[in-house]
Amino acid sequence: MDRLIDAIEEKQNPSVVGLDPTEALVPPQVVASFADEVRGEVDSPEEVPAAQLAVAFYEFNRAIIDAVADIVPAVKPQIAMYEALGTNGVDVYAMTCEYAADRGLYVLGDVKRGDIGSTAAAYAHHLSGVRDADGGAVYDPWHEDAVTVNPYLGTDGITPFVDAAVDANKDIFALVRTSNPSSSELQELELADGGKVYEHVADLVERWGVETIGDHGYSRVGAVVGATHPEEGRALRNRMPHTFFLVPGYGAQGGTAADVAGMFDADGSGAIVNSSRGIIGAWRKSGRYSESMSADDALDLVADCAREAAIDMRDNLRVAVYR
Amino acid sequence: MDRLIDAIEEKQNPSVVGLDPTEALVPPQVVASFADEVRGEVDSPEEVPAAQLAVAFYEFNRAIIDAVADIVPAVKPQIAMYEALGTNGVDVYAMTCEYAADRGLYVLGDVKRGDIGSTAAAYAHHLSGVRDADGGAVYDPWHEDAVTVNPYLGTDGITPFVDAAVDANKDIFALVRTSNPSSSELQELELADGGKVYEHVADLVERWGVETIGDHGYSRVGAVVGATHPEEGRALRNRMPHTFFLVPGYGAQGGTAADVAGMFDADGSGAIVNSSRGIIGAWRKSGRYSESMSADDALDLVADCAREAAIDMRDNLRVAVYR
Repeated sequence: MDRLIDAIEEKQNPSVVGLDPTEALVPPQVVASFADEVRGEVDSPEEVPAAQLAVAFYEFNRAIIDAVADIVPAVKPQIAMYEALGTNGVDVYAMTCEYAADRGLYVLGDVKRGDIGSTAAAYAHHLSGVRDADGGAVYDPWHEDAVTVNPYLGTDGITPFVDAAVDANKDIFALVRTSNPSSSELQELELADGGKVYEHVADLVERWGVETIGDHGYSRVGAVVGATHPEEGRALRNRMPHTFFLVPGYGAQGGTAADVAGMFDADGSGAIVNSSRGIIGAWRKSGRYSESMSADDALDLVADCAREAAIDMRDNLRVAVYR
Repeated sequence: MDRLIDAIEEKQNPSVVGLDPTEALVPPQVVASFADEVRGEVDSPEEVPAAQLAVAFYEFNRAIIDAVADIVPAVKPQIAMYEALGTNGVDVYAMTCEYAADRGLYVLGDVKRGDIGSTAAAYAHHLSGVRDADGGAVYDPWHEDAVTVNPYLGTDGITPFVDAAVDANKDIFALVRTSNPSSSELQELELADGGKVYEHVADLVERWGVETIGDHGYSRVGAVVGATHPEEGRALRNRMPHTFFLVPGYGAQGGTAADVAGMFDADGSGAIVNSSRGIIGAWRKSGRYSESMSADDALDLVADCAREAAIDMRDNLRVAVYR
């Protein structure tokens, strides 16, 4: 986790921008501007809307990345938004990761993968890439510095990701306590031996990372802990001293800087907070958008508003966290 | 689940072939045969091995699909194997699904997706496809008839998939009790109120499907129950009367026809059993492979052995299940 922590310290900003585009978050004139470009490149007329939206997602993401690259340490593209468009979207997911990496950002692929050991080993190529038959050059198709994983299958579904992270100097983040309302249905169940399911998972996650603790005292196995659970997050911070937290749920989902403050350690490290819609959709609440804008002007507005929102978030977190 | 059950009854075969190719499972001369074809189409020399393997996966899958299409009702491509190769692989995943669907097979996309509600809604486009802006034509990029999902986030992470399944006349399968050794670490934890975590998940899954029960008495929300847990599978069969089971872990992972028999209902319905390596890798144990074979001959061997193994599995299941 050292690379991420170094990047956070350099920017003095423990926040990550979620690149989770949807049709509603991209100004319609931007989407419309790619109608002609796409038409010649698809296999069928039905594919046009998906292909067009995928190209628009890429331009939207690039505008946001360019606008925030000097102030945030990391971005977190959510692959679901891209898979929603099929393979056109997945291509844009990978292109977005590559573009962000080229801009010097730490790329946290929010893929939430998880499966039995042999299958997890295949997914772990998200981190390790593809080595040629001679064991020489490595092709890195995904350009991710970390991925999120799901713990439901236990240790043998996680070990391949840890091994790949060690080999490639990358990281993973395992779901512990998610930010959504019904996360309680499974994660909060009381166990016969005491504690709750998510606390048991927390102990597993802390253990999964124990051999990989870096210079800053945190392992390569982070935990996803939702901003919507401030008290539990504070308790988990104490329970998992070597586990770095990825904290979703800030902003649009209701979490505030005060809510997440307890998820940081005494030095103001130990966590990174994600905001997606609050930053990439800030243009919609700016009062400066009009349907008659050109596509370029709309993208400029998206970028300006994203930058302002990212600076606001940074400054709020600095006050709350860097005490 | 009616379409799957009808297909099983038509073929009198409650088994599904897992299309989980790996480099080790594809005869090397098949991979080598695509060296020239690929070289002109990649962006960088490093990409060649991944692109070449992806094309080989597709030809391998087509040979197997052609060999088993008249005897099995369904195939289950595991997307991890394709993501391991990057976007080249994901393209081949979608092409494989389309090819299998065109051959009349029910396509069970083993993607094990799961996330908070708004993100799950994006993933649910795996089933619902992409509708154009006028709400008219639907583009179906993935060609899946069902997907597997992860229950760790609770109801709001599942509901979007259920809604999409209803709209598109498709199905989902939620992880309940997985086949891997360390599945016990989380799934078998004893709860303070009695029962185990996986039993609680089983009750959630049964409930998630309750509004979607079809003509055959099973809902659109199936459960993944590993063949490696025969006693638990039998108990779950009684506990989840409207939940169809996808049973992995047969064959290479150790499960036998006798192990899975208890996961079927009294009419011999209620479950479909997956085998991957045992069928697609059967050529390696045939004693009929030689390195000097042509690529075409090697693919013919793959196909012949897959068909023989699929027939063996079918016949073993018929004896054990259709009592």
